[in-house]
Amino acid sequence: MKAEIICIGTELLLGEIIDTNAAYLARELAAMGIDLYHKSTVGDNLKRAVETIRTATERADLVIISGGLGPTLDDLTREAIAIAVGEQLVVNQEALRHLTERFERMQRPMTENNKRQAEFPESAEMVANPMGTAPGIWLRLNNSGCAIAAMPGVPRELKVMMEQEIKPRILKMMPPGEHKILLSRVLRLVGIGESAMEQLIMPLIENQSNPTIAPYAGNYEVRLRLTASEHEESAAIQLLNNLEQQVRDILGSYIYGVDDESLETVIINELLRKGQTLAVAESCTGGLISHRLTNVPGASAAFMQGAVTYDNSAKIARLGVPEQIIAEHGAVSAETATAMAMGVAKTSGCDYGLASTGIAGPGGGSSAKPVGLVYVAVYGQGRTAVNERRYASSRISNKEAFAQTALAALWQFLR
Amino acid sequence: MKAEIICIGTELLLGEIIDTNAAYLARELAAMGIDLYHKSTVGDNLKRAVETIRTATERADLVIISGGLGPTLDDLTREAIAIAVGEQLVVNQEALRHLTERFERMQRPMTENNKRQAEFPESAEMVANPMGTAPGIWLRLNNSGCAIAAMPGVPRELKVMMEQEIKPRILKMMPPGEHKILLSRVLRLVGIGESAMEQLIMPLIENQSNPTIAPYAGNYEVRLRLTASEHEESAAIQLLNNLEQQVRDILGSYIYGVDDESLETVIINELLRKGQTLAVAESCTGGLISHRLTNVPGASAAFMQGAVTYDNSAKIARLGVPEQIIAEHGAVSAETATAMAMGVAKTSGCDYGLASTGIAGPGGGSSAKPVGLVYVAVYGQGRTAVNERRYASSRISNKEAFAQTALAALWQFLR
Repeated sequence: MKAEIICIGTELLLGEIIDTNAAYLARELAAMGIDLYHKSTVGDNLKRAVETIRTATERADLVIISGGLGPTLDDLTREAIAIAVGEQLVVNQEALRHLTERFERMQRPMTENNKRQAEFPESAEMVANPMGTAPGIWLRLNNSGCAIAAMPGVPRELKVMMEQEIKPRILKMMPPGEHKILLSRVLRLVGIGESAMEQLIMPLIENQSNPTIAPYAGNYEVRLRLTASEHEESAAIQLLNNLEQQVRDILGSYIYGVDDESLETVIINELLRKGQTLAVAESCTGGLISHRLTNVPGASAAFMQGAVTYDNSAKIARLGVPEQIIAEHGAVSAETATAMAMGVAKTSGCDYGLASTGIAGPGGGSSAKPVGLVYVAVYGQGRTAVNERRYASSRISNKEAFAQTALAALWQFLR
Repeated sequence: MKAEIICIGTELLLGEIIDTNAAYLARELAAMGIDLYHKSTVGDNLKRAVETIRTATERADLVIISGGLGPTLDDLTREAIAIAVGEQLVVNQEALRHLTERFERMQRPMTENNKRQAEFPESAEMVANPMGTAPGIWLRLNNSGCAIAAMPGVPRELKVMMEQEIKPRILKMMPPGEHKILLSRVLRLVGIGESAMEQLIMPLIENQSNPTIAPYAGNYEVRLRLTASEHEESAAIQLLNNLEQQVRDILGSYIYGVDDESLETVIINELLRKGQTLAVAESCTGGLISHRLTNVPGASAAFMQGAVTYDNSAKIARLGVPEQIIAEHGAVSAETATAMAMGVAKTSGCDYGLASTGIAGPGGGSSAKPVGLVYVAVYGQGRTAVNERRYASSRISNKEAFAQTALAALWQFLR
């Protein structure tokens, strides 16, 4: 079954609000195994709304419309549907009853404008709205069987109506056996780029059908989305498990987490599991590494302290970095990073120390040490590891890249 | 001039991410006085992408496309544009140079996949992407003069490209006189709530027409958007200046910044102006205050260091907080916050110390000291100030509220 989403409202075209309904509806359709090929937005303009609805009914089996069911003059979804399907607007008695009861319950007078909300295309049935005034519309086209569902744009009203009223009607439309479950799983990787990753798993990508596998770029990491479509949830999970194992055989050393797991979550949980502790010394990342680690609930049992040693004197006084290391190699160097990591671990009595030093920009760069250069170091169990990386972005994005690099290095060190 | 937005990406049709680009682009077009009649989303499917682009070029003067410019096989925007406008894909030398330089700077090998990113429709010119790898596309159709602009879907890349590259090209297309200037200015306030603010300026709100004035809630602050529409920029600026003065007469003591000025920017600039220095001691905010302050370019001349003293022993050892203060009043108390602010200033030799201690949650709360309770303290010039606040949100939102409270307290202290 093919579906199409249409959002109606000039406010969406002015960018005054971000449309969350479309993403919600898209997820719900995907979960039902319905293909969504187009999503459109039009303003409060009758001609364009009619055209968009008509085009959608010609190429889809199900058209879901959000918005434009209110009482004011610019709410024209009811009229646009009627014109698009070639029907008259008539008062729907059930909708009128719903409105009358609602206004009585709120002890507010019902205006003529509100009565317009009961004017439906002749063959439409009312969709109950338990959360608000505007009733929704459900209609099947005589010739094609295409269904049109219209709901108000208020997200909390739309969600309840989709769940309680529209989804059961859609399920009834679907031929037996077509209703499929679509399950997705996201693998999160660090230490490898998007195209290098794609090349390594090209055989899996080229042979995909079900489950599918799609690489995409995250925030200074790469991700793989595995998606399986099956009639039974257990079969979909089995497909995902098999494909995940094939991917892990190739890329296992880069995969740090699944779905919503962040690097900081994986690191804190690993430290808690081992009963070990961590201290962080940050220069160029300016507190961002500590901030991310302390976002994890329960972090306080593993993350003991952070030092944002922006100034060189702080690196010396707080962390015990030898003055001559900074003098000889510079504050931005592998040697200083390593001394910071060892220093913060030792002065705090923690098992691990993690350190960053680099040039976030926009000032402070040179040809030898350009903006975007970073050193991250890890110390623990008598070992040290240090990485050099170069990025080329704004100050804030560089900080994000640096922090991600540092957490990735710590994750690799802990494995 | 009529514009149309097309977002390309299956992830948008699966509802996995909420599309913020479309709203951003819509706002930018509205501000330029360009009519946006349609916004569409299609998945990574060549046939449907071609159809959608072709339809858009037939009814609009400007088609803005976001997404699908990456290096992988499912990135098909380049090819779809070429087919839609009837051109061949050829290697664009400028785009190839951009890619080569970028990979050299990152010291990473450029794969064959990455080279695909330089394959453009013959008549297209490259749009520079200063924030990322994927170059953008600008193309004018021979017959209709319709322009196509394609940018990557990564929001921070798209925004910079729209601002620096695409908007100037659009302005050149517009007939003289059609371009009405819409200028907005945002006043940012702390220390007052949205409804209290609205009541104080109700006479200004009720009399608005041009410029308009709209209160809205920001992230733990409130904002006022002033908007003027004029043919000449100078006239719009004059209208905004007059209204801003009227607002400042009423709300001046709460207004810390204008437009993109953040609290941290205002604070760092004030310290730099005075030639004074700051150190920060954080418990519950976990590094977020230091992170925000170090986001400001040039912060290193005013922000000397931060201490994330999550553990009590770190508060004692790093900051010299007396053990009996913690024993008597608890780590989350006005007394400990004050001792932390004094301690971090004195141990670092800075003019000012800023401290936070609280309970971010979800664990660690009690009936006397619930989750969401925070104390922020400022020390400087022999004075101290301490504030108690209560919030009720998730761990991460509580941290954000706490950090904003601390920076607001420091801003008020510095005035």
